[in-house]
Amino acid sequence: MEIYVGYVAGMLGTVCWMPQAWKAWSSRDTSGLSLIANLLFLLTVTLWLLYGLLVTDWPLIFANGSALVIVLSIVAAKLKYK
Amino acid sequence: MEIYVGYVAGMLGTVCWMPQAWKAWSSRDTSGLSLIANLLFLLTVTLWLLYGLLVTDWPLIFANGSALVIVLSIVAAKLKYK
Repeated sequence: MEIYVGYVAGMLGTVCWMPQAWKAWSSRDTSGLSLIANLLFLLTVTLWLLYGLLVTDWPLIFANGSALVIVLSIVAAKLKYK
Repeated sequence: MEIYVGYVAGMLGTVCWMPQAWKAWSSRDTSGLSLIANLLFLLTVTLWLLYGLLVTDWPLIFANGSALVIVLSIVAAKLKYK
């Protein structure tokens, strides 16, 4: 039972920022987004990816590799439409 | 070495949304925030907290319990100043 909660949490943590990336690029309205928060989150995801690589944990590598792309696109939108 | 990367990632993942919560409440500008993304992230953090409780993992419980409060405040700001 616990393992399924963990899997769902892991997958949801990867896809949950897709609507934010979509909103930022489609509306070009990023004034309410905190650049510092998104840069810190980008660093967080990068560190989790590094940790996954160091301990060769594929679920961590896959989840954080995907999240990295999404968060990068949010940061890019914030920098472009500030 | 890996363990420190994991600890830093875990702590950063908790504090990184503080600037977003601060920005949302102080500027009252939440139009660029995706409600769906933040609700999904709230669900993610809640599931990680539940997972931590199920497997009695204190670092997970502490990190996600703290994150839950911060993300709840971002969602509350979004609902109040939409």
